[in-house]
Amino acid sequence: MTTDNSARVSVLGLGAMGTALAGALVKAGYATTCWNRSPGKADELAAQGAEVAPTARDAVRAGRLVIVCLFDHASVHEVLDPLSDELAGRTVVNVTTTSPAQSRELADWAAQAGIAYLDGGIMAVPDMIGRPGSSILYSGSAEVFDEYKPLLELWGTGSYFGEDAGLASLYDLALLAGMYVMFAGFLHGAAMVAPVGMTAGEFAALAAPWLSAMTGGFQGFAEVIDGGDYTVAGQQSLAFSDLGDLVAASADQGISTDVVDMVQRLVRRQIDAGHGEEGFARIIESIRQPA
Amino acid sequence: MTTDNSARVSVLGLGAMGTALAGALVKAGYATTCWNRSPGKADELAAQGAEVAPTARDAVRAGRLVIVCLFDHASVHEVLDPLSDELAGRTVVNVTTTSPAQSRELADWAAQAGIAYLDGGIMAVPDMIGRPGSSILYSGSAEVFDEYKPLLELWGTGSYFGEDAGLASLYDLALLAGMYVMFAGFLHGAAMVAPVGMTAGEFAALAAPWLSAMTGGFQGFAEVIDGGDYTVAGQQSLAFSDLGDLVAASADQGISTDVVDMVQRLVRRQIDAGHGEEGFARIIESIRQPA
Ligand SMILES: NC(=O)c1ccc[n+]([C@@H]2O[C@H](COP(=O)([O-])OP(=O)(O)OC[C@H]3O[C@@H](n4cnc5c(N)ncnc54)[C@H](OP(=O)(O)O)[C@@H]3O)[C@@H](O)[C@H]2O)c1
Ligand SMILES: NC(=O)c1ccc[n+]([C@@H]2O[C@H](COP(=O)([O-])OP(=O)(O)OC[C@H]3O[C@@H](n4cnc5c(N)ncnc54)[C@H](OP(=O)(O)O)[C@@H]3O)[C@@H](O)[C@H]2O)c1
Repeated sequence: MTTDNSARVSVLGLGAMGTALAGALVKAGYATTCWNRSPGKADELAAQGAEVAPTARDAVRAGRLVIVCLFDHASVHEVLDPLSDELAGRTVVNVTTTSPAQSRELADWAAQAGIAYLDGGIMAVPDMIGRPGSSILYSGSAEVFDEYKPLLELWGTGSYFGEDAGLASLYDLALLAGMYVMFAGFLHGAAMVAPVGMTAGEFAALAAPWLSAMTGGFQGFAEVIDGGDYTVAGQQSLAFSDLGDLVAASADQGISTDVVDMVQRLVRRQIDAGHGEEGFARIIESIRQPA
Repeated sequence: MTTDNSARVSVLGLGAMGTALAGALVKAGYATTCWNRSPGKADELAAQGAEVAPTARDAVRAGRLVIVCLFDHASVHEVLDPLSDELAGRTVVNVTTTSPAQSRELADWAAQAGIAYLDGGIMAVPDMIGRPGSSILYSGSAEVFDEYKPLLELWGTGSYFGEDAGLASLYDLALLAGMYVMFAGFLHGAAMVAPVGMTAGEFAALAAPWLSAMTGGFQGFAEVIDGGDYTVAGQQSLAFSDLGDLVAASADQGISTDVVDMVQRLVRRQIDAGHGEEGFARIIESIRQPA
């Protein structure tokens, strides 16, 4: 046991995610005190050796480090506001999903109450906690991140992005945006092939390795974007990327063209502005500047 | 050398892709005859041992199997139409990108001319030909696919989907749709984080492994879709997937919300129709049925 392990850790919120986080701490030998609003959620953790506190105040008192994993920004305030006296001098790591503005607001609130604050965005589902592929983004207090890195990395790879507590939420949302948009693209493809009798499962078996491989193209786009010159040689041009055939084939299948129309509009805006011979990465300009 | 290897293969079209395909054949020891409309493109292949035919007719005469890799549907007809007499009794594998309808039209044309026809859709860039990750979709004549599978697999994994020659093009377009939509999602994320100083390269380093990992979710969606019951337990609900926060955070960054609005519309259509508690995979219904 390290010094860290002997210091008690508290976990507020035992939903699916809080339970997974607390479970990883208990398993690693951390003395862990848990609390949840509704009773009964801590039974399994208690059997594994966690202490169960009857109130959030009792839980906070037990730990030098307080992990918060509640539903949203409002529930975090609802639970923490009455405990600011008790939290003063302690450390809060809040992994509840909040917007960048909400994370900044919580960091300000914590600073005024004398609480060290680190904000986290969990890029994993509960089953993935502590397993390969789990990644957690952090911003806020660098001291907190540095001190507790071994503990935080029990949950997944921890990346720290800076003192602005809103950064982790922002990157979290940016990655979620990529995910939801990719899901829509996958489902559009599945809808295109359904009329000829391909099941979604068969399409998934083709699309998962294909899209995985195509993420290999991101760095090439990024080099062009960061370099600031969309005319460098060797890129697929915007004119070549015109999605007209793809939109027409979707319509031929009798499905909505909304998903691919979105990309086509981004492409067309750049072509219409005279950039057809420049690289595909230029469509980021259609996104950066609202029409 | 197998019997196949001693039979001469012809390649019509030596653009970037045709050159890569022909190069792989020559390297594997196939007797290969090449032709390209503009001269000079075959010099490197000739140095590697390929024959260079002065006309397309000469090239066709030399091969029992004729690989066609031209620009588009129109160029395929322009080159092949005058040679239908010569092509009769031979086999054409056409890997030029065409729409499903165009592939079917070419298959009909070939059938009338007594030509065995296989249509291919190349899911790779020229550099990937013959290397891991290269995948080629085929449809049309099963006999042709079976006979030439060892040759076709020199280029990448070959998958055969059925006698309807339009299938490979359709699956090709469905996978490209997924890719372009994913690229738009990545670029949206990169645009979201740019205002706080994250480079596109830094975001790509986060987004590529993240989206790769998230392709692991496709099979789960597919099971729900193929099962036909969007209410099965354990799924992320549509109500939980409301992208309101994500859209707001994008707007806060001063960028266009077009990309994420697209997904949000698909989600909202299902929630508004009363399906908020059903699984996210249900947004495929927003795609299947145009609004
Ligand atoms: N699950 C995931 O895949 C995942 C992934 C990444 C991030 N997250 C984030 O992690 C956080 C927790 O997610 P989860 O999956 O654990 O959610 P969950 O299973 O729905 O649990 C929500 C937790 O918040 C508590 N809570 C809600 N409102 C409260 C209030 N006003 N006062 C006190 N406690 C309150 C609930 O207590 P009761 O038991 O009393 O209701 C429960 O412990 C969320 O912000 C979520 O976005 C989750
Ligand atoms: N490159 C890729 O990453 C990629 C990936 C998947 C699929 N494909 C598909 O593969 C095919 C070829 O692509 P590519 O990259 O090789 O294109 P490319 O480098 O532009 O080459 C086009 C080829 O078509 C020939 N051509 C065009 N119009 C013609 C006509 N009317 N008559 C005779 N020949 C004509 C050109 O001959 P000249 O030299 O005389 O102009 C050249 O050989 C396309 O359908 C493309 O969509 C390409």
